[in-house]
Amino acid sequence: MNIVLLEQEQTQSGEWAIESPRQLQHLQQHLQVQAGDQLKIGARDGLRYLTEVTSVEEHRVCVRPIQQESIPDKLSVRLVVALPRPKVLRRLVMDSVTLGVSHLHLIHSYRVDKSYWQTPFLRQLQDYVTLGLEQAGDTIAPEVTLHQRFKPFVEDVLPQWISPTQPAFVAHPYAEQTMPQGIDTPCTLIIGPEGGFIPYEVDLMQKNGCQAMHIGNRILRTETAISYILGRLGN
Amino acid sequence: MNIVLLEQEQTQSGEWAIESPRQLQHLQQHLQVQAGDQLKIGARDGLRYLTEVTSVEEHRVCVRPIQQESIPDKLSVRLVVALPRPKVLRRLVMDSVTLGVSHLHLIHSYRVDKSYWQTPFLRQLQDYVTLGLEQAGDTIAPEVTLHQRFKPFVEDVLPQWISPTQPAFVAHPYAEQTMPQGIDTPCTLIIGPEGGFIPYEVDLMQKNGCQAMHIGNRILRTETAISYILGRLGN
Repeated sequence: MNIVLLEQEQTQSGEWAIESPRQLQHLQQHLQVQAGDQLKIGARDGLRYLTEVTSVEEHRVCVRPIQQESIPDKLSVRLVVALPRPKVLRRLVMDSVTLGVSHLHLIHSYRVDKSYWQTPFLRQLQDYVTLGLEQAGDTIAPEVTLHQRFKPFVEDVLPQWISPTQPAFVAHPYAEQTMPQGIDTPCTLIIGPEGGFIPYEVDLMQKNGCQAMHIGNRILRTETAISYILGRLGN
Repeated sequence: MNIVLLEQEQTQSGEWAIESPRQLQHLQQHLQVQAGDQLKIGARDGLRYLTEVTSVEEHRVCVRPIQQESIPDKLSVRLVVALPRPKVLRRLVMDSVTLGVSHLHLIHSYRVDKSYWQTPFLRQLQDYVTLGLEQAGDTIAPEVTLHQRFKPFVEDVLPQWISPTQPAFVAHPYAEQTMPQGIDTPCTLIIGPEGGFIPYEVDLMQKNGCQAMHIGNRILRTETAISYILGRLGN
């Protein structure tokens, strides 16, 4: 947690109260904050501030803003990922948000177990987004969208994002071309499930304007591939 | 698991037996292998093969080699990371190996809790290396070295790796220069603990030939930073 993210309505007065048990635990046990300490606070979907802690009580830490700080820029990358195993979902969403993707789309794919769509963790996506923002020091939540049917997504949604200046890349170990490096255009990046997309899916994405690109002959876990490729695409 | 890694002595005859409970569980429960299936097998620190499953029993799966396959290249990156929390250690080592670093060095740093050096997980490093190799489809284990004292490491060990054609980069959010991109020389990459290196440590590394480089104004988790920066440095 590199900032504490508060709701807009919590930052209206001259002094702001932090009362969420999760945030209090971090401040009191991990950071051991005391009155007079400085603390970075973000207002969700708003500004970010350096603040001073004015009081520390068991169920409340109060701060007052000292100065405004800048918010990190988002990447110009729309990330599309096959819905991962529930166990991996939290970390994947959190990391994608931390890395700064502008939009996150979780899609179905042949090798996504249908039961994954029933996990209660999907109801906690906004919590994972918050964790990612707090890690990055960001306040602006990217949109997270679920697409439970592969074909309509690829045929109807995906093509709207693609143009000669806004390419879409699908990471695919058997592609002939190498994932580009340091690009300066907005793009869509598509990453498959464990075991990869099946040939039919790669074909359908290519028919709808995507370029299949490999990232070498090492097979990475989905989460590792996301940060590795975002690092490669960035400039 | 994208290959099954066997010890050299397990691959001496014409038919090889897989008997490790962990590997058997993956083959039987996850892949549901049957006689006649093809399976990728690596001989530790040796070659990699496409094989055919010849028999499946409860405590043993047998295969025979069909053809030799190529092993993925390593990155020309020596990775130095501050010892992470025990909970993170497994994934960090596994991912670094999967990504293909040539050497992995775990070092002490001011913000590394001394208790981390006592974790029993440090005795399982070779297991984590195996998991990383099996994920990547690699057979050659990188060396993993522990350095429990920061200053002797930075003053005596680190300088030996640095030359005009072999730079060392320390990731540091307050550096003025940006981490380079797509470099074609071998290099050393140094990544700090949660909370970062302290100024004294960054100074000492700089005095000993390291270049401090930032990766933008988002603060990434250690593991995320590793794959993000390796993606950025690769070419």
